[in-house]
Amino acid sequence: MAESMLEYGRRMLSAQAFSVMVGAKLDAWSEGLAELSLELRPEHLQQHGIVHGGVIAYLADNALAFAGGSRLGDVVTLEFKINFIKPARGELLVARARVVSAGKSQAVCHCEVFAEEGADVTLCAAAQGTIWKAG
Amino acid sequence: MAESMLEYGRRMLSAQAFSVMVGAKLDAWSEGLAELSLELRPEHLQQHGIVHGGVIAYLADNALAFAGGSRLGDVVTLEFKINFIKPARGELLVARARVVSAGKSQAVCHCEVFAEEGADVTLCAAAQGTIWKAG
Amino acid sequence: MAESMLEYGRRMLSAQAFSVMVGAKLDAWSEGLAELSLELRPEHLQQHGIVHGGVIAYLADNALAFAGGSRLGDVVTLEFKINFIKPARGELLVARARVVSAGKSQAVCHCEVFAEEGADVTLCAAAQGTIWKAG
Amino acid sequence: MAESMLEYGRRMLSAQAFSVMVGAKLDAWSEGLAELSLELRPEHLQQHGIVHGGVIAYLADNALAFAGGSRLGDVVTLEFKINFIKPARGELLVARARVVSAGKSQAVCHCEVFAEEGADVTLCAAAQGTIWKAG
Repeated sequence: MAESMLEYGRRMLSAQAFSVMVGAKLDAWSEGLAELSLELRPEHLQQHGIVHGGVIAYLADNALAFAGGSRLGDVVTLEFKINFIKPARGELLVARARVVSAGKSQAVCHCEVFAEEGADVTLCAAAQGTIWKAG
Repeated sequence: MAESMLEYGRRMLSAQAFSVMVGAKLDAWSEGLAELSLELRPEHLQQHGIVHGGVIAYLADNALAFAGGSRLGDVVTLEFKINFIKPARGELLVARARVVSAGKSQAVCHCEVFAEEGADVTLCAAAQGTIWKAG
Repeated sequence: MAESMLEYGRRMLSAQAFSVMVGAKLDAWSEGLAELSLELRPEHLQQHGIVHGGVIAYLADNALAFAGGSRLGDVVTLEFKINFIKPARGELLVARARVVSAGKSQAVCHCEVFAEEGADVTLCAAAQGTIWKAG
Repeated sequence: MAESMLEYGRRMLSAQAFSVMVGAKLDAWSEGLAELSLELRPEHLQQHGIVHGGVIAYLADNALAFAGGSRLGDVVTLEFKINFIKPARGELLVARARVVSAGKSQAVCHCEVFAEEGADVTLCAAAQGTIWKAG
């Protein structure tokens, strides 16, 4: 049976040793969209007990690349910028990215990162990045 | 005996559980400058055997915050942007950040991230960010 | 009769000498949203006959600030980033900005810039910026 | 007699109608470096009597492109980010850009924008951008 796009994406993610260490999961991946999540553990935090900005940046970076990759195939992140909006705490970190525009070699993507704490969902960061077709 | 600025910085870094998991070290910290490094291990890589962009973004983010914090005290990263320039591979990843401008509440900082592979040193990424005085 | 929000915004824009020289108009301004436009003239172009990136960046910057200002009052643009996606040509340049998140002192905003050439509408640029309450 | 690099750059700038309207001059252009300036006039200001952010962004954008173009030839600005640091006022606005890294098709560049008011020189903005070889 053919491997689905989501299965293929999960296989790629599981080949990223860093993503395995951090604990990221690919929840959804389709044309122009990607959603990654992370069950928050103590090792994701910084000295004030909130999620380290580097974790949020990592998840946004990866979600941007998956979103862009859904349109371009094998890709690299050329650059991205991220705004940290609210402290992230709780059980789950979710990054949702979408393609704003895709051409032959370049996709410009947006990503929003949310923290879920019980029933509360907080927008923690917003990112914009440039994803480039590899090779 | 009084704790030096560098000792204080290392204590802060060691209180960041994520930084401990990733393995970052604070090599230098002085007025307007910060240098963080990372001995590269297999778990820092992505599927093509190079350092994951999220690791580079994490190290740049932290170096930017230390640089800004050297002028402002306790800080948060408001936002940053990072350009990935060359693939990072080798034994060591080094992020050097400096304050471009600091006011009462805001510091704008630059950071360059280098990978060291034997005698080769490669500029892998350049970042610019806004660090804000906390509280 | 009381001045409407849009009238007030147009008065502010007309007090910006640079905006008057460039020819920007405020088409819409409401809670969390702003739309600025520019009737394209030969002096907006660069050497290849398309709209100069500086014109697009100007319009995005202003739209981001109006969007943020709709939530925060008097504001300054702390920083922004812009991706140039497609060349801009035609009769009209339109920048639509919206607030992604607003707190007491900070708003993170997105902006898309479109060029209209006859019946064609092209997404030319996407921007993300940080707007700060003045004073 | 052969045209010098600086003369060629000035000819390119004078072919940008928008740059002519704004009044930008190319003061220096060499391998990896570019300096543009602007004699400040009332039409460069916004409603509070300081230089409009769009003017600063325009000058930075152009300086980044000239710097990158000094290494890559004919270029486009793929994206840039700019931090506004201090209000700009005075007689002259100067943007100095340099190439941080250049490959075959991409240059990452930094730019600092200064305002000169009498003997005072103020750093008003810092930018980082990606310049791409055209064609």
